[in-house]
Amino acid sequence: MAGVQGSALAIAVSNAGGLGSLPCAMLTPTALRDELQALRAGTRQPYNVNFFCHTPPVPDAAREAAWRSALAPYYRELGQDASAIPTGPGRTPFNDEAAAVLAEFEPPVVSFHFGLPAPQLLACVKRWGARVLASATTVDEARWLEAQGADAVIAQGLEAGGHRGHFLSDDLTVQMGTLALVPHIVRAVSVPVIAAGGIADAQGVAAAIALGAAGVQVGTAYLLCPEATTSAVHRAALQSDAVRHTALTNLFSGRPARGIVNRVMRELGPISPLAPAFPLATAAIAPLRAKAEAHARGDFSPLWAGQNTTHCRTIPAAQVTRDLVAGWGRLAD
Amino acid sequence: MAGVQGSALAIAVSNAGGLGSLPCAMLTPTALRDELQALRAGTRQPYNVNFFCHTPPVPDAAREAAWRSALAPYYRELGQDASAIPTGPGRTPFNDEAAAVLAEFEPPVVSFHFGLPAPQLLACVKRWGARVLASATTVDEARWLEAQGADAVIAQGLEAGGHRGHFLSDDLTVQMGTLALVPHIVRAVSVPVIAAGGIADAQGVAAAIALGAAGVQVGTAYLLCPEATTSAVHRAALQSDAVRHTALTNLFSGRPARGIVNRVMRELGPISPLAPAFPLATAAIAPLRAKAEAHARGDFSPLWAGQNTTHCRTIPAAQVTRDLVAGWGRLAD
Repeated sequence: MAGVQGSALAIAVSNAGGLGSLPCAMLTPTALRDELQALRAGTRQPYNVNFFCHTPPVPDAAREAAWRSALAPYYRELGQDASAIPTGPGRTPFNDEAAAVLAEFEPPVVSFHFGLPAPQLLACVKRWGARVLASATTVDEARWLEAQGADAVIAQGLEAGGHRGHFLSDDLTVQMGTLALVPHIVRAVSVPVIAAGGIADAQGVAAAIALGAAGVQVGTAYLLCPEATTSAVHRAALQSDAVRHTALTNLFSGRPARGIVNRVMRELGPISPLAPAFPLATAAIAPLRAKAEAHARGDFSPLWAGQNTTHCRTIPAAQVTRDLVAGWGRLAD
Repeated sequence: MAGVQGSALAIAVSNAGGLGSLPCAMLTPTALRDELQALRAGTRQPYNVNFFCHTPPVPDAAREAAWRSALAPYYRELGQDASAIPTGPGRTPFNDEAAAVLAEFEPPVVSFHFGLPAPQLLACVKRWGARVLASATTVDEARWLEAQGADAVIAQGLEAGGHRGHFLSDDLTVQMGTLALVPHIVRAVSVPVIAAGGIADAQGVAAAIALGAAGVQVGTAYLLCPEATTSAVHRAALQSDAVRHTALTNLFSGRPARGIVNRVMRELGPISPLAPAFPLATAAIAPLRAKAEAHARGDFSPLWAGQNTTHCRTIPAAQVTRDLVAGWGRLAD
């Protein structure tokens, strides 16, 4: 969960019996090395490192200008000089440099969002025996991932918070809820399937296992843990009534991701055709976010959350993890 | 499942240990009486009768004209005289007349979609002790239904086929996948919760029970049963690759409903702001549907289906039902 956690949460989860995950999409090579050192110092249990592997888009000046023009009323309202706002990617896909840092640590599990890196690059992480996980939002994507060498497929249902992991089609209407998606993918591939989306407690784990999943991926339920770096405005939103309404939005990065509906999503609509391609949309909205957050407002913040927030509580990650693990005992053989 | 089944499927399900359901939204009082007589003759087990309870909209001539103009190229292509196409509702909400017919039979369970009938009318069916079920797509709707006297709430997740049952808000972004919705509603109400959407086999049943559901509602898995009246084009679509892509569409009735993506959904987009309010959109597209179906094409047909079609098979409804019932044994206490 890039932006809301670092190694501390991953360590707590791994030490409690889960597979803690380090989001690396927004880390420089130096920061990545620091985090991996912290992880290695903090746990002797397996852990996962997660990367994005999108193809960086060609910047489109006209679209960028149209997007900034849509945001212009907000720049004026918040007293910001639009011409001083830089452009820039914000997120780097997995690359040779990151692979070189990983090789120093040989993490046991590496996961990818938005497909898989090129075969040569994927081979790098397989060299030390890392198990490779990747997200699929459709049966086609699951089959593709298996064919390309993924050791397990994460079936990401529509309930999931944060970025949709699709990479073969950006048509959101082909994507399914977790309850429908998991059985489809379990039937389509022979590698283990990890259910993601809407799972927040032992009941959800038992449900996923009943559907044929070999494991679950849980994010939202950890957002209020003290080990997470979730911002104050994000935490406040998660604890407010606003959490009852999430939507898929591309306003914050250019790709659809599920977050709590806030002012900019309401006013521009959660999906805008003007938002530049991922990850370029981030730059123009970032200063609005910063200014609003400085006044304790999340009007322009990506408040990522899944649809099931019934178990978001301010409790240690170890407790969340143990509650989830208890779900495995619920099913009779 | 109005349009794709009658009493025969309900009888088969009830006799196999499920609660068979008779869709009554498109039946005249005479047809309703005939079907209830058939039901009573065919089973001694409990059964359910299902009604819509929408508020009929005020016809809007301008919108109707805009809608017909959007369909005009299709009228030309199929050689139809647009001026000869009648307007009309197609579906009647539950009313005094239907209640009077029900009173002759005293069905043990009555369910409603799109809210509940007015209190006086609801009291009619409660007079003979009928249990009342109704669909909720959100926590707010579940609470409302419980407060108005529903004896159980059907939590309709986004995976479900056919019409969305929402009635307090038509904002589709507030609606959740089944895996997220069921635990929310279980927490919010004290009446039993019936999970619907994406459930097609024993695994799905076990998953729903794990989430706290007291029962499940299953539709799509029965569509290919010999006892269903599913049309030939609908059956063909369910057995083709097309079934992998369903979407919510308002083109066929004016209300969002999940169906297999077909030509008109692709070409006009699945949701059109031009489609008249439910159920008025049906009239203008009906002749296109009839003409295309006569040529074995489902280009203009509502091909209702949920997202989980992995278990749509041409097998007797009793077998589908027994397979589902087996899901209850899967959970340890």
